[in-house]
Amino acid sequence: MNDAVDLADALSSFDEPWAPRTIAVLNDYDVRVVKTTGEFTRHSHPETDEFFLVLRGSLTIRMEAGDVMLGPGQLYVVPRGVPHQPVSADGAEVLLIEPSETVNTGDTPSELTAERRHV
Amino acid sequence: MNDAVDLADALSSFDEPWAPRTIAVLNDYDVRVVKTTGEFTRHSHPETDEFFLVLRGSLTIRMEAGDVMLGPGQLYVVPRGVPHQPVSADGAEVLLIEPSETVNTGDTPSELTAERRHV
Repeated sequence: MNDAVDLADALSSFDEPWAPRTIAVLNDYDVRVVKTTGEFTRHSHPETDEFFLVLRGSLTIRMEAGDVMLGPGQLYVVPRGVPHQPVSADGAEVLLIEPSETVNTGDTPSELTAERRHV
Repeated sequence: MNDAVDLADALSSFDEPWAPRTIAVLNDYDVRVVKTTGEFTRHSHPETDEFFLVLRGSLTIRMEAGDVMLGPGQLYVVPRGVPHQPVSADGAEVLLIEPSETVNTGDTPSELTAERRHV
């Protein structure tokens, strides 16, 4: 059984950018927080949509069809299979929701690939 | 394809309490916002967990094993099958995530049962 989670507490427990932490589980989905800064790798998730909600700062999701710019309290669902590059010039804190087996770098594994980790 | 969604804009578009509005779709899940006030019906969802994130105000989720009290930036996942009664004496705005077919009153349909509605 999950406990209640305070997003600020969870985010204060780590500093590493682009390394999501799982804070709760919803059926077979993970609820994650991530700190973003600079440019992430361009990738897609062929098997799933991906939910982004900006909690602090700003995040741009670069896509071929156009960029999506998100500030605090703004969310976007990247459709499955759509290449996207998260970019956050000034840093952001973001809530992610996606199937638990989803890997952050999707179809482009690299040194940025993060293992599934809980806070 | 979903658009980017501003939570404040979505919440300002309706007033009716306990009537969730779907603001985005993540695979076969709905992302919803709801305004809560007073006591909702006690119910469970035998087939799914249910995600609550308080955006404004405070929400108590009454359960037999103990109440969970949530303020802004705090989240909780009610496990599938667990009877719960959301209560919000002073009102709250809440982000919900659950499978798209999930009905707000779960296994206790009543006049509070809401149809699936988009903002």
